[in-house]
Amino acid sequence: MNRIPFEKVQEKLAGVLQKLGFSAERAQTCARLFAETTCDGVYTHGVSRFPRFVAMVRNGSIDVNAAPKRMAGFGAAERWDGQKGPGNLNALECMDRAMALSREHGVGWVSLGNTNHWMRGGTYGWQAAEAGLIGICWTNTMPNLPPWGAVEPCIGNNPLVFAVPRAEGPVVLDMAISQFSYGALESYRKRGELLPVEGGFDVEGKLTRDPGAIEKSQRSLPIGYWKGSGLSIVLDMIAAMTSLGRATHELSSDPLFEADVSQVFLAIKPDVFGAPEVQSRIADEIVASVDGCKPAKEGGSVRYPGEKTLRTRAENRRLGLPVDTALWAEIAAI
Amino acid sequence: MNRIPFEKVQEKLAGVLQKLGFSAERAQTCARLFAETTCDGVYTHGVSRFPRFVAMVRNGSIDVNAAPKRMAGFGAAERWDGQKGPGNLNALECMDRAMALSREHGVGWVSLGNTNHWMRGGTYGWQAAEAGLIGICWTNTMPNLPPWGAVEPCIGNNPLVFAVPRAEGPVVLDMAISQFSYGALESYRKRGELLPVEGGFDVEGKLTRDPGAIEKSQRSLPIGYWKGSGLSIVLDMIAAMTSLGRATHELSSDPLFEADVSQVFLAIKPDVFGAPEVQSRIADEIVASVDGCKPAKEGGSVRYPGEKTLRTRAENRRLGLPVDTALWAEIAAI
Repeated sequence: MNRIPFEKVQEKLAGVLQKLGFSAERAQTCARLFAETTCDGVYTHGVSRFPRFVAMVRNGSIDVNAAPKRMAGFGAAERWDGQKGPGNLNALECMDRAMALSREHGVGWVSLGNTNHWMRGGTYGWQAAEAGLIGICWTNTMPNLPPWGAVEPCIGNNPLVFAVPRAEGPVVLDMAISQFSYGALESYRKRGELLPVEGGFDVEGKLTRDPGAIEKSQRSLPIGYWKGSGLSIVLDMIAAMTSLGRATHELSSDPLFEADVSQVFLAIKPDVFGAPEVQSRIADEIVASVDGCKPAKEGGSVRYPGEKTLRTRAENRRLGLPVDTALWAEIAAI
Repeated sequence: MNRIPFEKVQEKLAGVLQKLGFSAERAQTCARLFAETTCDGVYTHGVSRFPRFVAMVRNGSIDVNAAPKRMAGFGAAERWDGQKGPGNLNALECMDRAMALSREHGVGWVSLGNTNHWMRGGTYGWQAAEAGLIGICWTNTMPNLPPWGAVEPCIGNNPLVFAVPRAEGPVVLDMAISQFSYGALESYRKRGELLPVEGGFDVEGKLTRDPGAIEKSQRSLPIGYWKGSGLSIVLDMIAAMTSLGRATHELSSDPLFEADVSQVFLAIKPDVFGAPEVQSRIADEIVASVDGCKPAKEGGSVRYPGEKTLRTRAENRRLGLPVDTALWAEIAAI
């Protein structure tokens, strides 16, 4: 594991992106989003994902200089076409547009079709919350999860993000609808550990904590069993129907061709409802009530979503981003 | 179990409500919502809840003729005060207002504070979807769920609703954030059954399927463990901050005094994004892809949220609403 300064990571990735045909400015922004994701401790979706991103540029899934285009709109609601551009740049621009709409109308909604994997969904939640806005967004994905009662993956794990601004640091929930991602299952298996809770079915149809058994059956669990299954379906419907984009069942099951996904970006301007100081007090009191809840284990703690992020961000800024040595060599060789 | 015609149930409940001081028109609407909930098969939140509702009128939690009032607004986003009125009438009016805003602006957002239990959350999702609109809404609740890592109930099970219009019947997800409600735990215990999946911790802190053990420990599980815990927290924050109403930690833990809750109503007008016939095709294809997913058990089926509702509604309209005999006598005696 190397520790590499944030700026150096960004420069290196931006250099690769320029070689792939990105304009200098877009290369810098795209590279920054990858570096920020690693910096915030979401290691699965940051620099580690970069080689797959490069592969998707090379196989034609991502059109490096395509920008999203406004296709339809009425008041506070708009539909954009991602034109197969880079998923993170498209998402950044569409959340930005939802934010602008919320400043004009109190709330803003942008649906985006024909786009690519947005990498870390939380990025666009932080984007809204750091600008003082409430942000809600979600994406559909390739079929990677069986609906409740089924044996084959017909629905997506459709990550869903809720972000709330707060002076002492936003509260940001960034969750996929599967209980464990395939990346997480692989990590547990490699460490020879059982999952902390049941994560899916084995090939016999029994619930199990054995990560390898779930990788084999491909029967990962939705959060809340039948509840997450239903949630995944409605998120897919709303994203595809309002973006006129593709639904999960139309997407390739090959991660290298998981293109043309559909997304929703919603921003809400809190101060249209009341005085910011009152809202800050409400937010702080909720956080305090959670922090103060009696832990199950002595010395344990109870956390709100995103609580660790600002600490991790500061630490990684100070010490440098942790990047796997082999991964760094792989990127250097692109 | 009696089977009582829908109209007779509505008339009986409306009569009781008028005795309690409701105007004739409000009594009819309020009674209709209770009858419709039972008619749709959500027995826990329909006529069965009526005695508790009456008790909350009598103990002063519900002000029978108070109507919600618009307190602030900017474009497509408004804040309303429920003035302690009946929760279902307040919610009906605020979803109606969000729907009107969506017709003007593409999307409409109403936050409602100082209101009462909305009974069945799905009611307001169906309300939007049956008018051809996408509806999203949620409420906070009294503390009834421990956040992940805690032993005491500091967060709410905050029901969350997503409703999507569709010609052949809306798709409506209505889910609480707890895996099983206390009502469900009680039913399993009385039938002498184990839960189908782990539903909470016992007093020793072990995950269990024994409903009685969870009733004893009061440590019910959020859906998705740490994920549902985070979701409950952000839903509470957004509802309380935008309504300037109370947060979960400020609400009474006595169900008879679970007053002054905070809610959010969001409506989206789908045809501002594209042609309804294209959207219908997208919706139908998603439903078909879920229905066609290979079931885990031979002869089993895979369902989308709300799939059973229209059948149940038709059956209960035809045969009469199933109402417990003792409950019916109790209501007749009010």
